[in-house]
Amino acid sequence: MDHMKNPIITLLTDFGTKDTFVGSMKGVILGICPQARSIDLTHEVPPQNITAGAFLLKTSMNYFPKGTVHLTVVDPGVGSSRKAVAIQSRGHYFVGPDNGLFAATLRDWGFEAMVELTEKKYHLSKISQTFHGRDIFSPVAAHLAKGVPFSRLGKPLSQLVPGTLPLPRPIQDGFEGEVLWIDHFGNLVTNFGNRSLSVPFRLKVGKKIIVKVGGHYAQVKKGELVVLGGSSGYLEVSVNQGRADQVLKAKLGDKVSLIL
Amino acid sequence: MDHMKNPIITLLTDFGTKDTFVGSMKGVILGICPQARSIDLTHEVPPQNITAGAFLLKTSMNYFPKGTVHLTVVDPGVGSSRKAVAIQSRGHYFVGPDNGLFAATLRDWGFEAMVELTEKKYHLSKISQTFHGRDIFSPVAAHLAKGVPFSRLGKPLSQLVPGTLPLPRPIQDGFEGEVLWIDHFGNLVTNFGNRSLSVPFRLKVGKKIIVKVGGHYAQVKKGELVVLGGSSGYLEVSVNQGRADQVLKAKLGDKVSLIL
Amino acid sequence: MDHMKNPIITLLTDFGTKDTFVGSMKGVILGICPQARSIDLTHEVPPQNITAGAFLLKTSMNYFPKGTVHLTVVDPGVGSSRKAVAIQSRGHYFVGPDNGLFAATLRDWGFEAMVELTEKKYHLSKISQTFHGRDIFSPVAAHLAKGVPFSRLGKPLSQLVPGTLPLPRPIQDGFEGEVLWIDHFGNLVTNFGNRSLSVPFRLKVGKKIIVKVGGHYAQVKKGELVVLGGSSGYLEVSVNQGRADQVLKAKLGDKVSLIL
Repeated sequence: MDHMKNPIITLLTDFGTKDTFVGSMKGVILGICPQARSIDLTHEVPPQNITAGAFLLKTSMNYFPKGTVHLTVVDPGVGSSRKAVAIQSRGHYFVGPDNGLFAATLRDWGFEAMVELTEKKYHLSKISQTFHGRDIFSPVAAHLAKGVPFSRLGKPLSQLVPGTLPLPRPIQDGFEGEVLWIDHFGNLVTNFGNRSLSVPFRLKVGKKIIVKVGGHYAQVKKGELVVLGGSSGYLEVSVNQGRADQVLKAKLGDKVSLIL
Repeated sequence: MDHMKNPIITLLTDFGTKDTFVGSMKGVILGICPQARSIDLTHEVPPQNITAGAFLLKTSMNYFPKGTVHLTVVDPGVGSSRKAVAIQSRGHYFVGPDNGLFAATLRDWGFEAMVELTEKKYHLSKISQTFHGRDIFSPVAAHLAKGVPFSRLGKPLSQLVPGTLPLPRPIQDGFEGEVLWIDHFGNLVTNFGNRSLSVPFRLKVGKKIIVKVGGHYAQVKKGELVVLGGSSGYLEVSVNQGRADQVLKAKLGDKVSLIL
Repeated sequence: MDHMKNPIITLLTDFGTKDTFVGSMKGVILGICPQARSIDLTHEVPPQNITAGAFLLKTSMNYFPKGTVHLTVVDPGVGSSRKAVAIQSRGHYFVGPDNGLFAATLRDWGFEAMVELTEKKYHLSKISQTFHGRDIFSPVAAHLAKGVPFSRLGKPLSQLVPGTLPLPRPIQDGFEGEVLWIDHFGNLVTNFGNRSLSVPFRLKVGKKIIVKVGGHYAQVKKGELVVLGGSSGYLEVSVNQGRADQVLKAKLGDKVSLIL
């Protein structure tokens, strides 16, 4: 396969960047697969927030070429009985804990194969109880990048634990959703898809009703609220040259209503 | 060209690192040019601060070899009528919005060629209205790194919008400049070049006059202020084992006087 | 050597990520050794904290393959008379200032050769007085990665300045150690090795005595304190689904007693 010459491994974790956690994972990867490219998606998933991790993976994975291995570790249950898994889907590979991280991906893409990572020869020889990202998931991702056939990684699996990425639900005058993510600029990413833009609506966040729907920030005045079709595929609430999270005092998980 | 074997793309943005914005850009790049190396300059340009972005680009680009593509995205006008451009200068390439980001570079280096990025076959097929960094600038940078001739990217351009990087201006007893940047250690980087060190002077920040001019931090006592020829080519105000920004309560854009 | 095809250079600094310091270092490296892979260990060592830098290097370097060059710059004495050095140990290379950063590594691994970096042809032609990371250490690391023989970098050295990574000391009812590091999750990493787990003990932090010793977080109730054998090889104090640093109001350097 062509991608084997320059294999890509993305890393998405809640490990932050002050420690050498991520650096150690990359060392393990390069020790097994020297030609692998490690690409950071982000390491600032809010600690142990599986829903945020699932959102961030789902909205970036499709910008990578086939053959990419997505090493995804938000793992509050590390060391307990939760399974370590790998998934093959549309020519991409996913490696991480079985705790709901991958459900949104599977909902969109389906899957071709899944395994539980039971084959210990693809792990480090010494496994810590608190850092499977380094000791199990990184070496497995590197072996996949190096060309080890998927099915050798462990025993077949037919089901994962369900995910927690919330879907909008119908209410009397429209739909109720929530703030899935708040980005670096303070934009509120909702769980309403951009296709909602095909019908007229108002959006309610807290007690505030937003009626302006635009294509980009500069379509409203400085400081004004606007609803945009976001670059991640979901409706976003923004403030031109300002921060919607501060203007609306919003936080992750806050309810948002789409009123038809 | 030799650099084509290991093409380098630098990334300089105000996107921060909590989202997957930068990771998605690298995915797009690798999908087009699998051998490209993406090198982060920084993603912590203060949001929408074009002047800071111009300073950071200008003071780091010359440490990269010829052939490097500098993908630079501080883009408050994304989605509006501002142009998307590429510039060729001294064998380096620059890709980003036409909003003043590249003026300081051109002032020093001049340019060999400029284009407006009108050729859509070098963009992603689906363009969002708020993330041209991923949808236009990254694929263009990757195509350049892959060897697409510069002139094919769009129609020739002869002028950019002017930049905002401020130059010192003469005052009665010397020159007035400003705090261009405050670094991680709290050092204040001014817009007075290091060549000012060839004549005796005092530096005034707020009401404080600094007379000590040194070569390195340890030449003054712990906690003392000193003016140094900075590693970016500009005079810096520092505190030995302390933070000048806190000692002087200084912020970006504060006035600084060089008194002869 | 096989590693020469894909040479690895790790970067560990206190430079932070808001500036282009680290990006410029990678530019210098790629200009000299285009095939080098730069891997960030972390750039968030607390400013000028040599002890923390030594801990972070010591606990991650062994996850990298032989031939790796560890470029390590926590350098409060930059520009003064402190030496610039390189060390060869177990097939790894270390490059940085001689200020105690490498002592913990040498204590564990010993060394094969050491040099003072006196050979100026392996440095940049223009050396700033405040950024040897870019002007001396990066080019030396890149030349090593490119295959320049170690002994050519400068004159042989037989001793480094001593390190400051503290060892536990015996007290009446056990040992007194300290908090070496606080990680992203608020776990307190002590300087007691995990082999302490072979005997029963209690751990005292401030006025709090912790008796629960576990293998992973989920072995105690939510919010409860537990002592674990940490993934870095040292005992850690953790709170299941919480932050030990906040619960115990602990900070770097706080005393910890291991009571037998």
